[in-house]
Amino acid sequence: MVNIYKASSKLEDYYSPKVIAELNDTYIKVVKILGDKVPWHNHENSDEVFLILNGTLRIDIKNCTSQFLSEGDLFTIPKGITHKVSSVEECKILLIEKKDTKHTGTISSSITKTIKEQLL
Amino acid sequence: MVNIYKASSKLEDYYSPKVIAELNDTYIKVVKILGDKVPWHNHENSDEVFLILNGTLRIDIKNCTSQFLSEGDLFTIPKGITHKVSSVEECKILLIEKKDTKHTGTISSSITKTIKEQLL
Repeated sequence: MVNIYKASSKLEDYYSPKVIAELNDTYIKVVKILGDKVPWHNHENSDEVFLILNGTLRIDIKNCTSQFLSEGDLFTIPKGITHKVSSVEECKILLIEKKDTKHTGTISSSITKTIKEQLL
Repeated sequence: MVNIYKASSKLEDYYSPKVIAELNDTYIKVVKILGDKVPWHNHENSDEVFLILNGTLRIDIKNCTSQFLSEGDLFTIPKGITHKVSSVEECKILLIEKKDTKHTGTISSSITKTIKEQLL
């Protein structure tokens, strides 16, 4: 058993997802972000779910309007859809995605973490 | 986009999961329970995740001690593990499980809903 609020309060670094649970081929992670360092990317083989634990997350989807998500808001990015996320203030998020999903897709950037680095 | 707290506040009936989102082969549902009507059951082909939105959920696992989950607690029941859930007061839950998972396993009881009935 894990408490999602306690787990997210223990996050030390921004943009560094940590796996807290799994089901089948899927990982559940917590991550915190602050700023605009996540590059445009997509996940070819997995949908991705964002659930906001606190703060406000901006999700930009290529050629669409921006979405602003607040506490309790849950949003699925379908696989293949190019997107980026950012926040003006600290935002803590529960992420749900397939175990082999790279969190910045095929884009390697300054914030990219390997899946091994995401395991607590 | 869906807000998990608003969605769970709109639930009319106990023991009647409603699908609020999906990713890949998995559904995300909200459900509220009150009492002890869920039969012992297991899910042969899917792990099942419980995330408590409010209240306290008791999870009994066959031949194990009971677990009591509170707000923010997240727990995975591995596939094949026989379990039951109950609550003394109303408890609202986010459920994550494969789309073809029957919520009371192969057991048909007074509370059993078809997957079609779980679609909003």
